[in-house]
Amino acid sequence: MGVLRWIGNDFGGCRYLMGFAYFAGANFLLTMVAAILCVCFAPTAAGPGIPEIKAYLNGVDTPNMFGATTLIVKIIGSIGAVAAGLDLGKEGPLVHIGSCIASLLGQGGPDNYRLKWRWLRYFNNDRDRRDLITCGASSGVCAAFRSPVGGVLFALEEVATWWRSALLWRTFFSTAVVVVVLRAFIEICKSGNCGLFGKGGLIMFDVSNVSVRYHAIDIIPVAVIGVIGGILGSLYNCLLHKILRIYNLINEKGKFHKLLLSLSVSIFTSVCMYGLPFLAKCRPCDPSLPDSSCPTTGRAGNFKQFNCPKGYYNDLATLLLTTNDDAVRNIFSINTPREYEILSLVIFFTLYCILGLITFGIAVPSGLFLPIILMGSAYGRMLGIAMGPYTKIDQGLYAVLGAASLMAGSMRMTVSLCVIFLELTNNLLLLPITMLVLLIAKTVGDCFNPSIYEIILELKGLPFLDAHPEPWMRNITAGELADVKPAVVSLSGIEKVGRIVEVLKNTTHNGFPVVDEGVIPPMGSPNGATELHGLVLRAHLILVLKKKWFLQERRRTEEWEVREKFTSIDLAERWGKIEEVLVTKDEMEMYVDLHPLTNTTPYTVVESISVAKAMVLFRQVGLRHMLILPKYQAAGVFPVVGILTRQDLRAHNILSAFPHLEKSTGGKKGH
Amino acid sequence: MGVLRWIGNDFGGCRYLMGFAYFAGANFLLTMVAAILCVCFAPTAAGPGIPEIKAYLNGVDTPNMFGATTLIVKIIGSIGAVAAGLDLGKEGPLVHIGSCIASLLGQGGPDNYRLKWRWLRYFNNDRDRRDLITCGASSGVCAAFRSPVGGVLFALEEVATWWRSALLWRTFFSTAVVVVVLRAFIEICKSGNCGLFGKGGLIMFDVSNVSVRYHAIDIIPVAVIGVIGGILGSLYNCLLHKILRIYNLINEKGKFHKLLLSLSVSIFTSVCMYGLPFLAKCRPCDPSLPDSSCPTTGRAGNFKQFNCPKGYYNDLATLLLTTNDDAVRNIFSINTPREYEILSLVIFFTLYCILGLITFGIAVPSGLFLPIILMGSAYGRMLGIAMGPYTKIDQGLYAVLGAASLMAGSMRMTVSLCVIFLELTNNLLLLPITMLVLLIAKTVGDCFNPSIYEIILELKGLPFLDAHPEPWMRNITAGELADVKPAVVSLSGIEKVGRIVEVLKNTTHNGFPVVDEGVIPPMGSPNGATELHGLVLRAHLILVLKKKWFLQERRRTEEWEVREKFTSIDLAERWGKIEEVLVTKDEMEMYVDLHPLTNTTPYTVVESISVAKAMVLFRQVGLRHMLILPKYQAAGVFPVVGILTRQDLRAHNILSAFPHLEKSTGGKKGH
Repeated sequence: MGVLRWIGNDFGGCRYLMGFAYFAGANFLLTMVAAILCVCFAPTAAGPGIPEIKAYLNGVDTPNMFGATTLIVKIIGSIGAVAAGLDLGKEGPLVHIGSCIASLLGQGGPDNYRLKWRWLRYFNNDRDRRDLITCGASSGVCAAFRSPVGGVLFALEEVATWWRSALLWRTFFSTAVVVVVLRAFIEICKSGNCGLFGKGGLIMFDVSNVSVRYHAIDIIPVAVIGVIGGILGSLYNCLLHKILRIYNLINEKGKFHKLLLSLSVSIFTSVCMYGLPFLAKCRPCDPSLPDSSCPTTGRAGNFKQFNCPKGYYNDLATLLLTTNDDAVRNIFSINTPREYEILSLVIFFTLYCILGLITFGIAVPSGLFLPIILMGSAYGRMLGIAMGPYTKIDQGLYAVLGAASLMAGSMRMTVSLCVIFLELTNNLLLLPITMLVLLIAKTVGDCFNPSIYEIILELKGLPFLDAHPEPWMRNITAGELADVKPAVVSLSGIEKVGRIVEVLKNTTHNGFPVVDEGVIPPMGSPNGATELHGLVLRAHLILVLKKKWFLQERRRTEEWEVREKFTSIDLAERWGKIEEVLVTKDEMEMYVDLHPLTNTTPYTVVESISVAKAMVLFRQVGLRHMLILPKYQAAGVFPVVGILTRQDLRAHNILSAFPHLEKSTGGKKGH
Repeated sequence: MGVLRWIGNDFGGCRYLMGFAYFAGANFLLTMVAAILCVCFAPTAAGPGIPEIKAYLNGVDTPNMFGATTLIVKIIGSIGAVAAGLDLGKEGPLVHIGSCIASLLGQGGPDNYRLKWRWLRYFNNDRDRRDLITCGASSGVCAAFRSPVGGVLFALEEVATWWRSALLWRTFFSTAVVVVVLRAFIEICKSGNCGLFGKGGLIMFDVSNVSVRYHAIDIIPVAVIGVIGGILGSLYNCLLHKILRIYNLINEKGKFHKLLLSLSVSIFTSVCMYGLPFLAKCRPCDPSLPDSSCPTTGRAGNFKQFNCPKGYYNDLATLLLTTNDDAVRNIFSINTPREYEILSLVIFFTLYCILGLITFGIAVPSGLFLPIILMGSAYGRMLGIAMGPYTKIDQGLYAVLGAASLMAGSMRMTVSLCVIFLELTNNLLLLPITMLVLLIAKTVGDCFNPSIYEIILELKGLPFLDAHPEPWMRNITAGELADVKPAVVSLSGIEKVGRIVEVLKNTTHNGFPVVDEGVIPPMGSPNGATELHGLVLRAHLILVLKKKWFLQERRRTEEWEVREKFTSIDLAERWGKIEEVLVTKDEMEMYVDLHPLTNTTPYTVVESISVAKAMVLFRQVGLRHMLILPKYQAAGVFPVVGILTRQDLRAHNILSAFPHLEKSTGGKKGH
């Protein structure tokens, strides 16, 4: 954008064209760099990344999401895309970058060059990895908005599935470190040699210098903002859903199409940004303002001169020919009731609605926050002008409220948005109004469709497990669900190598129950009983086959043998696929003692439990496999009825097996 | 306190004595009202109530905690105790009041006069009751501190055990309503005819009018505040624990002793409050201040004149002879670097340490927040004076940081305290420092002892279930735990009335497994099998006995019979005790079909599961009973090994049965 600033004073058409060429060319090149990186090296780096992080914390791993390549592409791509003036933000990417860094730190480096330090192993478990990624996500929001508490709450309200009080203060700690580091850099950059970084200090869009006076009657415009914000937000979700579907069709055609789409959007953006300000009339500067503040030329600020004579400014250029952050700052600006003409705001709003819809799905790192804030603030400011005679609230505050309402209408967050807006604008007296607006917009939006992140999750086909079971899930039992699945494949405690290989090759299951037959229980039948020993994981079976821990005869291993053979580090590693395992014919006849490898304490449900309750257990405890036990007790009854996994518990999959359930009445939810 | 204000100007010893008599007398009477109400009518209204609410939301019900009597006593008692000038706050009581109101609204009124509206029944379940009480608690904090977001976070971080995103925005909604109502009352009270209500507007202790400048070097004093705050906080917890134990011994002796204790504390407080200011020297007013602001007499404000000549003020009286809220406001006051002498602050700090320790346990409604804020602010201000030459941070801000550090050191909250302090003081630029102080103080405090609420919970003997299983719990299985308990008492699906009465009279269990024998399973043994049908609750058995739903012969009931007999409303009611049930000898020989009353989908674990994992399930899903199933499958094995309840899973109870466990090494926690 910088290249443009020097052309403002000249009126020759040729210089405007040259300016446009520079402007569009620079934008085009920057977009191309971002898009090529994303398309060729790390497709997972495109988009915001927040839905995938949300899914990861729910238990769904997207491959290559937190790798070093993704991280580097995301950083460079995000710089490129934001610098290219596209209508996208850096918050989503920063959240993703934070999570990537956290994940890499936790595992000691990129996959192929991992540090093998002893203490790093302590992080090598699912829970710590999840905690680290949550901390990374909150740090990202904190870095994007300089909003430490908002970052914690965002991670809590939107991103995380499981939450513990320990995690609360750990995320709080990480955002505290982020804000201290930010503060230090702002201190260092005080002299102004870091470009726009540090502008606004720790509070990005300060609107605290205005007296907030409101009375009971102001409830009405506030409610109107909320209701319209909710409707616009859900409309945005709906349209974005449709456009993302079309984009998916285009993107499936190949890398070249992806690139072409991104570049077309870049050119369209450049044309609109540069061309539209010519539609606005030049407006005289308010004589009460000092000369230095109006008009501005050659630097960031309000009242851009652009194509106007001295003493005049172009209000649309003020909003369009600037960085997105500055556009927000300008539209939030307080005590400037006559700065923007309503026509300019309408053009701005329409343009950003279109750009917000077409930009999000292209193959560059892109955040959703800033586009929605821009749209919302324009809508709020327009409403503020319309309400002007009836209210005492400043137009800048209307813009803030409009932005908040559209955010809540689209993203459906409440507490975290409230705190983020508080920390962005530093106006505590506005808090009660902001709360109302957020709640109204969220409620109105919820009437129409789910939140934008849920829509994206569904579009990506990620099997996200919701907190609430559907009401009809209470009308079906886990046993009925197991009956329609293929019969469970179980292994004996001491199993032939051949059978293990066969089972692994013929099934895709990741867990197998281990059942011993003919054991003598402490009391009861003297004829021998079957015993459910536990659950063994595919990964551990492959480990056994790869390390060739075979026995010549069918016997239990001794404890000292176990200690010698197995280390917890081996068990925590990933061991590849069954196809990579080579077993000789002789070895096929040998035995493996699965007892030491078996998780003897799996979570179980009895077959008569309702799917709703099974799902609550599955999700609350964070499981991958859940064994179903029979409710009958007799000789000859097999001790395992089936295994439930995440896929089995997805509403969509259950309904395709039991189509009659959807129609059954639900009644009130409960557990 | 008001009676005192007019005596400031006179120097006669007699008038001082009369003043003291009025002061101490009024305080004594107010304390007496509060204490008599608490002692005679609602002992559960004494204290803050927050630990009991925390326990309730964890699944432990304290009797008479949320009744109408408790509510009324709490309101009047809290007004009395706060007005009596005791060193206690109104926040804890307000939280309790909020929860009481929520509970009463949810059940449609007090126990004996409940509304029987149809839609009220929808709230008559555990989850909605829990949600309502959580909303009530957050509204209480919001009302106490005018801190809506802080209230939500307090409920989340400190009070609630289970948390869902729906609950997040519901609490947010309730605090939004509170803040709108508060704002409306402040508007109405603007003319000043509501006493001190509305002072400070929505921001109680505003310190925003000071420039916050700090540099890297200021990390050192900030860390010092945090460390000392953490040490002081944990020391406070430790001493309070000891004193509460002594108080428990005194209070056990009877109502009169309770009353005597409260009144002695009141007299001691009055003597100290009135007598100590005479130790302070009169200090001349800063000539740069307007006459109206120094000295103050006859109204709330800084620079109290008390016993000083005109143009002079008594700094200790400024802190002591005022309401607690005003004392905080005065000690937080900014741009008054020379207002307080260090000696006065030392006296104030020492006095409030003593009062804070001896006041909390007396039989009046009392909150912990304000005493700790007062102590902490005094300590912070002292440190501020000591650090004076080395720092640019205002003394008032030091007082804020000191208060935050002591709160975190004692209560161990982070995010919620941070937001509460932000909303109390309206200084966003202080946020990074506050975060650091809170984290350091919490970490230091955690090295010594648990948080104050956990200490109180333990003292009250409430079986609170912690989120984390102890490491040694992984070395014991649920089956081993069941073995040391009395054998499980089970019922048949169609059971004799006599047996039911016998079982209910001879045991105290609240749940019984229902087992059918000799059923033919779909596959397996033709000899018949035993079937685990589910779990029946004591309350439902009593309901059956009371309603005399008996059968002449041993048969299953038909579905239409069930529909006729049972309504979900019956099942949700409480039905009293077994001793109240009268069953004739003939009826004893009749049968009851328990099948329709049985919960056929109980949560179960297999006997080989570790207690640690069983506990995670128990707590995450929020259970009361958990059935243990055998891992063996054979004829003659009984289908239930045992039942686990909350008491069985408490660390203390397990250790008394398995003393060797404590010594066993734990290793790293995990699930």
